[in-house]
Amino acid sequence: MRSFCSFIRTASTKQNSLPRQTIRSFTASTQNNRFQVPQFKSPPPAMTTTTLKGQPFDRPVLDSMLRRRMFYTPSFEIYGGVAGLYDYGPPGCALQSNVIEIWRKHFVLEEDMLEVDCTALTPEEVLKTSGHVDKFADWMCKDPKNGEILRADHFVEAVLEARLKGDKDARGIKVEEKEEDPKKKKKKVKNTEAVKLEDAVVKEYEEILARIDNYDGEALGKLIKDHDLKNPVTGVQPSPPVAFNLMFQTAIGPSSNAPGYLRPETAQGQFLNFAKLLEFNQQQMPFASASIGKSFRNEISPRAGLLRVREFLMAEIEHYVDPEGGKKHARFNDIKDVKVRLLNRHVQLAGQTTIEEMTIGKAVSNGTVDNETLGYFLARIQQFLFKIGVDPSKTRFRQHMANEMAHYAADCWDAELQTSYGWIECVGCADRSAYDLTVHAKKTGAPLMVRERLETPITIEEWQIDLDKKKFGPHFKKDGKTVEAAVEALPQDKREALAQDLQLDGKIKIEVDGVGNGTVEISKELIQIGRKTKTVNTREFTPNVIEPSFGIGRILYALIEHNYWTRGNEGGDEARGVLSFPPPVAPTKVLLVPLSSHESFKPIVNRMSRKLRSIGVSTKTDDSSASIGKRYSRNDELGTPLGITVDFQSVKDGSFTLRDRDSTKQVRADEEKILKAIKELAEGSKVWADIEKELPAFEGQEAEIPVLTKKD
Amino acid sequence: MRSFCSFIRTASTKQNSLPRQTIRSFTASTQNNRFQVPQFKSPPPAMTTTTLKGQPFDRPVLDSMLRRRMFYTPSFEIYGGVAGLYDYGPPGCALQSNVIEIWRKHFVLEEDMLEVDCTALTPEEVLKTSGHVDKFADWMCKDPKNGEILRADHFVEAVLEARLKGDKDARGIKVEEKEEDPKKKKKKVKNTEAVKLEDAVVKEYEEILARIDNYDGEALGKLIKDHDLKNPVTGVQPSPPVAFNLMFQTAIGPSSNAPGYLRPETAQGQFLNFAKLLEFNQQQMPFASASIGKSFRNEISPRAGLLRVREFLMAEIEHYVDPEGGKKHARFNDIKDVKVRLLNRHVQLAGQTTIEEMTIGKAVSNGTVDNETLGYFLARIQQFLFKIGVDPSKTRFRQHMANEMAHYAADCWDAELQTSYGWIECVGCADRSAYDLTVHAKKTGAPLMVRERLETPITIEEWQIDLDKKKFGPHFKKDGKTVEAAVEALPQDKREALAQDLQLDGKIKIEVDGVGNGTVEISKELIQIGRKTKTVNTREFTPNVIEPSFGIGRILYALIEHNYWTRGNEGGDEARGVLSFPPPVAPTKVLLVPLSSHESFKPIVNRMSRKLRSIGVSTKTDDSSASIGKRYSRNDELGTPLGITVDFQSVKDGSFTLRDRDSTKQVRADEEKILKAIKELAEGSKVWADIEKELPAFEGQEAEIPVLTKKD
Repeated sequence: MRSFCSFIRTASTKQNSLPRQTIRSFTASTQNNRFQVPQFKSPPPAMTTTTLKGQPFDRPVLDSMLRRRMFYTPSFEIYGGVAGLYDYGPPGCALQSNVIEIWRKHFVLEEDMLEVDCTALTPEEVLKTSGHVDKFADWMCKDPKNGEILRADHFVEAVLEARLKGDKDARGIKVEEKEEDPKKKKKKVKNTEAVKLEDAVVKEYEEILARIDNYDGEALGKLIKDHDLKNPVTGVQPSPPVAFNLMFQTAIGPSSNAPGYLRPETAQGQFLNFAKLLEFNQQQMPFASASIGKSFRNEISPRAGLLRVREFLMAEIEHYVDPEGGKKHARFNDIKDVKVRLLNRHVQLAGQTTIEEMTIGKAVSNGTVDNETLGYFLARIQQFLFKIGVDPSKTRFRQHMANEMAHYAADCWDAELQTSYGWIECVGCADRSAYDLTVHAKKTGAPLMVRERLETPITIEEWQIDLDKKKFGPHFKKDGKTVEAAVEALPQDKREALAQDLQLDGKIKIEVDGVGNGTVEISKELIQIGRKTKTVNTREFTPNVIEPSFGIGRILYALIEHNYWTRGNEGGDEARGVLSFPPPVAPTKVLLVPLSSHESFKPIVNRMSRKLRSIGVSTKTDDSSASIGKRYSRNDELGTPLGITVDFQSVKDGSFTLRDRDSTKQVRADEEKILKAIKELAEGSKVWADIEKELPAFEGQEAEIPVLTKKD
Repeated sequence: MRSFCSFIRTASTKQNSLPRQTIRSFTASTQNNRFQVPQFKSPPPAMTTTTLKGQPFDRPVLDSMLRRRMFYTPSFEIYGGVAGLYDYGPPGCALQSNVIEIWRKHFVLEEDMLEVDCTALTPEEVLKTSGHVDKFADWMCKDPKNGEILRADHFVEAVLEARLKGDKDARGIKVEEKEEDPKKKKKKVKNTEAVKLEDAVVKEYEEILARIDNYDGEALGKLIKDHDLKNPVTGVQPSPPVAFNLMFQTAIGPSSNAPGYLRPETAQGQFLNFAKLLEFNQQQMPFASASIGKSFRNEISPRAGLLRVREFLMAEIEHYVDPEGGKKHARFNDIKDVKVRLLNRHVQLAGQTTIEEMTIGKAVSNGTVDNETLGYFLARIQQFLFKIGVDPSKTRFRQHMANEMAHYAADCWDAELQTSYGWIECVGCADRSAYDLTVHAKKTGAPLMVRERLETPITIEEWQIDLDKKKFGPHFKKDGKTVEAAVEALPQDKREALAQDLQLDGKIKIEVDGVGNGTVEISKELIQIGRKTKTVNTREFTPNVIEPSFGIGRILYALIEHNYWTRGNEGGDEARGVLSFPPPVAPTKVLLVPLSSHESFKPIVNRMSRKLRSIGVSTKTDDSSASIGKRYSRNDELGTPLGITVDFQSVKDGSFTLRDRDSTKQVRADEEKILKAIKELAEGSKVWADIEKELPAFEGQEAEIPVLTKKD
C-alpha cells in the first residue's frame, strides 16, 4: 500500500505546518517512498504567498490568466472533461519543450548520460518484481447509497475539518476560507452546520488530522465507524476502505491473458536495460542513464491543477556507482562551493522547519548529505532549477526522515519549491542502493552487475562444492543440469550449514524447483563441500543507484508562480499579469509589433520575422488594431521577454526599438545590433542590463509619426 | 473494421508489386483509411535493395549492427520481451530527438503552428464519436486446440503461400526464401511439403492472395472453410474470424464505469481544442495545430521491427482552412518549383507504378493534386525528409485510390520511402474536409467553427420559424425549452417539408429526444414556417482539415537504411558498417580520439570536449586502448560524422586534425578554425567539401610521434 507505511513527518503536530504543505513523491525515491500517499494539503492559513514583486498572490486570478492564455486546459472539456487530465496549449507546450531542452543539455549532454526511450506499456511481471503490483495503492471506500467513490484519508479529513469548522462557527470564531475546487466547496458549505463540540473532541479531531497520513486502511475504517463519519451528500457511512492500485491496467496483445500496466514511473525501463547500457558504455563505471517520458497514475481524486494529475511528464536519471570507496564523484570539486538550503532530518525530528544554508562541500564533509555523488546531484539539480528561473528563496532541499525511507536506502532529499499550495516536491533525489538491479536480476537471472578486473589478484577462502560428475549425471538423469544449477547457486552461509549436514548425515537435502517433490537428496558419494582458498582476478558487484527524478509538470507550475507578478496600469484599469520567465525558457522570445497596419511595415516585419527564425529565435507578430500598449501587455501575460516595434523610423533608417518586458525600457539600434542583442538574450549569455549598457536608450514616443504619415 | 472496406490497389494483379510492398497507414488519413488493414508485406523477390553506395543490402547484418550499437532493443528483453515493443538506446534516442527538433523548427516554428500536448488517455465517448470504438479493428481467429490467436488475413495468406511453395517444390521450381522472423520460418518449413496442386487451384490461390486485403471477416471465414485451411501447429481449422479492436482499453478513475482507451493517433486532442486554439490565434484563419506524442495500437501480430509496433511516436499537423476559395495557400509561391515524384491514382488504376516527376506548381495547376494547401504540405514534407537525410531516389508520393478514401475526403497522398521491406508509408497527407470537427460538434454541441465578419452584409432568403411564445411555453410546460431547441435546430430542407405539412394538416410532427415518446406534435396555433429574407453580417463555416501525419519510428528506420553502407577493410577483415547521417541529425557529432593514453592528452581532450559542448555540439571521447582505426570504425557504425585526433602535434602547437566519416579525409588547423568548421557542419550550414576548400588537408601518419615521445 502506498499508505501503508507510517512516517514521522506527518506524525508531528499540526502546528508544524511542514507536513501539511508538502506534496509527496510522484517521483519515486525509495522503496517505501514509492508507495506512500502523496501528502498534498492546502497551505495553512498562516502562510501568505507573494508574487515575484512581493505583491499578495491571488491564485484564482493567475489560474484564469493561464487558462485564458491557454498555458493549459482540461482535456476533453467539450465532452465534460476528465479529472486529472490536462492538455498543454501553445505557450505551455513551448515552455515545456524549452525546459526539457535545457534539462537535456544540462544533464544528458553535459554529463554524457545515456538517454533511453522506453515504452509506457509494461507487462505485469516487471511491476510485480518492482513491488508496484502489490503495493502501489491508496485506500478507497464506496458510498453504499449513491456509489460515490471516496479516497478514505481525504474523506475522513474532510468530514472532521467540516465538524471543526462548525464548532468554530458555533463558538463565533472567524475561519479563513480555504481554496478548494468549486464542487468540493459546495459540499463542504452544505455540511458545515454550526455545532459546538466538546473540548476533548476538538482535541481528538485535531490529533487525528495531524496524523492522518499514518493510518492504514483498517485504521481509517475504524475512524469512520468510531466517529460515525457520514458522506455529507447521502448522509450514510461509506463502506470499509479497500486497497485501490493506482496503475492503469490493460491487456497487451489479442489474448486477455497478458495483463499489462501503464508505467507509473520511467525508472524500470532503465534498470532492465542496465547490462546493455554498461556494454554500450564499454564497461566503464560510473555512468548514468536518463529518460524523459510520460508516466501514468490513476489517482482516486486528482486535484490542485497540474500538481496531482493522472498522466504526467517525468525526467529521470539513474546514476550507477560502485558502492565501495565512499561513492565519490569525479566532478564534485566543480560544485563543492555551491550553496544549498537544507532542511535536514534532525531539524524535522525536532518539529522545526529551519533551513540551514551551507555549501554542498560542507554538507557532505559534515555528514548531512550521505555521499559525494548524492551531493553532486543536489547541486546540479539546484543549478538546473535556477537556470530555468525558479526563485532561489522559494527553493529548499528536504531530507527524508529515517522511517520515510526503505531499509536499503542510504539517503534521500527532495528539492521542494514553495508555491501557494505550500512546499511542493518537484525533484526527488535518492540513493536507492542496489535494490532495483538486485530484484530484477534475482527474478530473471540476468547479470545486472559489473565485473571489474582487479589490478592485483586476491586470494579468498570460501566454501567450495565439488560434484562427482561421473556419478552425478547418471544418478539424476534428465534432472542433472537442474540440480547442478541449484547446487552451484547455494550461497556461502548455506554451504557452511550443508557441510555440517554432510558430515553428520552423509547426505544433504536441498530445494530444487520442478524436480520431484521439490526437495532433492544428495549423498556424500556425489558431493563434497569444503573450505578452500582461491585466487580471484575479477570483482563482481551490483552498482548502487542515485536517482534524481523530476516531475516536469510540477516544476512548470512552480516556475509560473515564481515568475508571476502584476503591473498596475497607469490608465486605472485593473492590474495586468506579467510572467517574467528568463528568455531561454520563455515560450516566445520576441513580439514583433508594427506601429499600425500601414503597408510599408509589412515587408519589414516579414523580413525581421524570417531573420529571427533563421537564428533559431521564436517570434510572434501582432499586427492587430489594438494599441501598442495592449499588444505588449497581452504578451506580458505570455511571458514574451522582448518586443520590437516597427515604426516609420524603421522604414526610414532601418533602426528598431527593442523593449524589455520586465522594465518596459527600450533601446534603439540598427537591425544588426538588435538581432545580436536578441540572440544573446535568448541564449542567456547576456541579460537586459548588459544590453542597456551597450545600446542607446529610446525614450521617444514615436514623435516622427505625423511627419512621416504626411510625407507618405 | 479496419479490414472492412475494399480497395482497388490490392485487387490489382499480383504481378503488380505495388500493393504487396506498401505498408499502410499507421498514420490515419481518411475515415476509411484510418480503419484499414495495414498492408505490410515482404518485398517481392524481384526487388533488390541496395545500400547508399549501391552495394547489395544485407538486412540481417544491419539489424545486428543496430542492436549491437543499441539504436533500439526489444523492451523487457530480460523478462522474455513483448512483441511489438521496442526501447531506443542512446544513439536511437539521440537520432529521434534530433529529427524531432528539426521537425519542430521546420514546421512549428517556421509556419507559426500552435503546438499542443494532449493526453494519451482518452475517454470512450470521444473515440466512439470519431468512429474508432466501432471500426478500428482487425479480424482474428482462435485455434480451438491450443488457443493460439491468429490474425485471419495473415493466417490465410501463410497457409496458401505454404501450399504454393509445396507445389513449386513438387514441380522442381526453385523458390527464393523470404526473410521472416525465425519462429515463423520454422513453422513454415515444417509445413512445406512438396505436394503438386492442380493448375486451376494454383491460379485460384494466386487470385485469393492478390486480393487478400479485400476480404472481410465473413469472407475470410469462408475461405478457411472452403479450402480447409489448418493451423500447421495443431492441424486443426481455426474458429471463424471475429473483430478485434486495436485500441488498448483501460478504466480511468477508481470506478470501473469510466472506460477509456490509449489514443491510437494524436489527432483527436487537437480537434477537441479547436475553439480554444482559434481564440488563441485571435480568430485568424487559416492556422495549424501540431502535436508530437506517443500513440498506441494493440496489433494482433506485430512484425518487421520498428515498422509495426504497439507504441510509437507520431507527429501530426492539423491545418484548418476555409473550404471556400479553392483552399489557396499564402506561401504556395515559395515552394511551387519544388519537384516531387508522384504516383497518381490513374497510373495505379492502370496497374502501373510509373512515377512522374513534376513541380508541385504544375501538379496543382493540372489537377493531379487537389489544391494549393495540400500541395504546399507535400512540398514541405519532402523538404523535411530530404533535410534529415532521406534518399530522394527512394522517395515518392502515392495518391490514394478513390475507394481508399472516405466519401468526404478530397484527396490523400502518402509519402512513401523505399526500404528492404518495400515502399513504406511514412507520412500521410490527407484533405479530411470538415469531417472531424463536424462529428465532434454534433455530438457535444461545441461551436467548432469559424464566424467571419462579412465586409459587405448580404441578404439571403430562407425558411424561418416563428413560435407563439405566449402559447408555446404553457402548452409544453417543462418540455418547452427542449422542444424549442429541437425546432430551432431544424435544417432548411426539413423546414421546407414541414411548411407543406403545416399547410396541409394544420400541424407538424417532429422528433424530440427525451420528450414523451420521442415525437412531438405542434399545431399551427403555436408555429409558423415561412420563406423570408434576412440580412447577414457574418458567415459561419466549419473549416476543412489538411492533415500531414508523420510516423517517426518508420521515418527513423528508413533513414537508417538509406544512410547505411559498408566499407571494405584494407586489412582484409569483414566489411564495416557506416551510417552516413547528415551531421544535424547524427546522434553524436564529434568523436574525440587521443592518440594514446599519454597523460599530456587528457587536459586537451577535456578542454575540447567542454568547448564543443558549450557551443551545443554533442561529443564523445574514446580513450580506450583500441587502435585509432578501430575507434573510428566503431563510431562510423554510430553515424558520428566528425573525428578529432589529439596527437603530440596538438600538444606542441595546439593544432588538431578533423576527420570526415564518409571520405575518411582529414584536415588540420588550429583550435579556433576547427571549432568553427565543426559548428558549421553540425548546424548544416556547410558541408565537408566546403571545409576541405578552406582548411589544409592532412595526410601525415603522425610522423612526429617517436620524436616527441623521446622528448617527453
